[in-house]
Amino acid sequence: MEQRLSIITLTVDDLARARAFYEALGWRVASETAASEIVCFTLNGIGFALYPRQRFREEMGIGDLSCEADGGVVLAFNVRSRDEVAKTLDEAVEAGGTLMKAAADVFWGGHSGHFRDPDGHIWEVAWNPFSPLDESGSFSWSAT
Amino acid sequence: MEQRLSIITLTVDDLARARAFYEALGWRVASETAASEIVCFTLNGIGFALYPRQRFREEMGIGDLSCEADGGVVLAFNVRSRDEVAKTLDEAVEAGGTLMKAAADVFWGGHSGHFRDPDGHIWEVAWNPFSPLDESGSFSWSAT
Repeated sequence: MEQRLSIITLTVDDLARARAFYEALGWRVASETAASEIVCFTLNGIGFALYPRQRFREEMGIGDLSCEADGGVVLAFNVRSRDEVAKTLDEAVEAGGTLMKAAADVFWGGHSGHFRDPDGHIWEVAWNPFSPLDESGSFSWSAT
Repeated sequence: MEQRLSIITLTVDDLARARAFYEALGWRVASETAASEIVCFTLNGIGFALYPRQRFREEMGIGDLSCEADGGVVLAFNVRSRDEVAKTLDEAVEAGGTLMKAAADVFWGGHSGHFRDPDGHIWEVAWNPFSPLDESGSFSWSAT
């Protein structure tokens, strides 16, 4: 697993309120999904996203994130091909992580899976055909 | 507040175990404080750190982070001068954030303060004279 990170997602109770806060700081949204269920900002070579907490819990099949070690923060490691997702999850498990959700096609059109590090922090490993990584591994949201 | 981020810190229950996990993934530590109380990795233009959860709680004067919205993840926004710390915290409060810890000189030799976003996620605003930002705002740990 290369020494880099693609996206930080903060899960939030009120998406409009969270978006208004970061916009009031002067940040500008990069793009949104058609359903407006995610708010995306491109930072310095990484993505930053706001996502409804309840929806994330349902997708993951987990309970109240506010009492888990991760607390509703998800780090993402994006890869360059579909096959790399399962391979990277295997690496993480070999290193001592715990598989949370196996590699699978996901509703937004990509392929991803999740693991937890030894303290419970959540990492998503994702192949996103709509926002390919650049040569250096930098990430930015593409327009949707 | 510029649209960028400097460091992601995961607070952990067992620093040696957490470090072993990320090293087993193939990541290499950039530098450590003399006291080895923080483990630092330089990623793609951002820093990534592992820090003892109990120590962070004591420094912040807060209770069990595992049951707070942030869950022991801290995002850092580093600034180019000492004066910018208080100014940036003011901006965050004006935008709807909550001051958590006012700007002050800190034990590691810098100057920093903390705010929470509307969902409770923690941001540190820091001036670190030992690891200055580059022109573009990219961050990397300097050798200590």
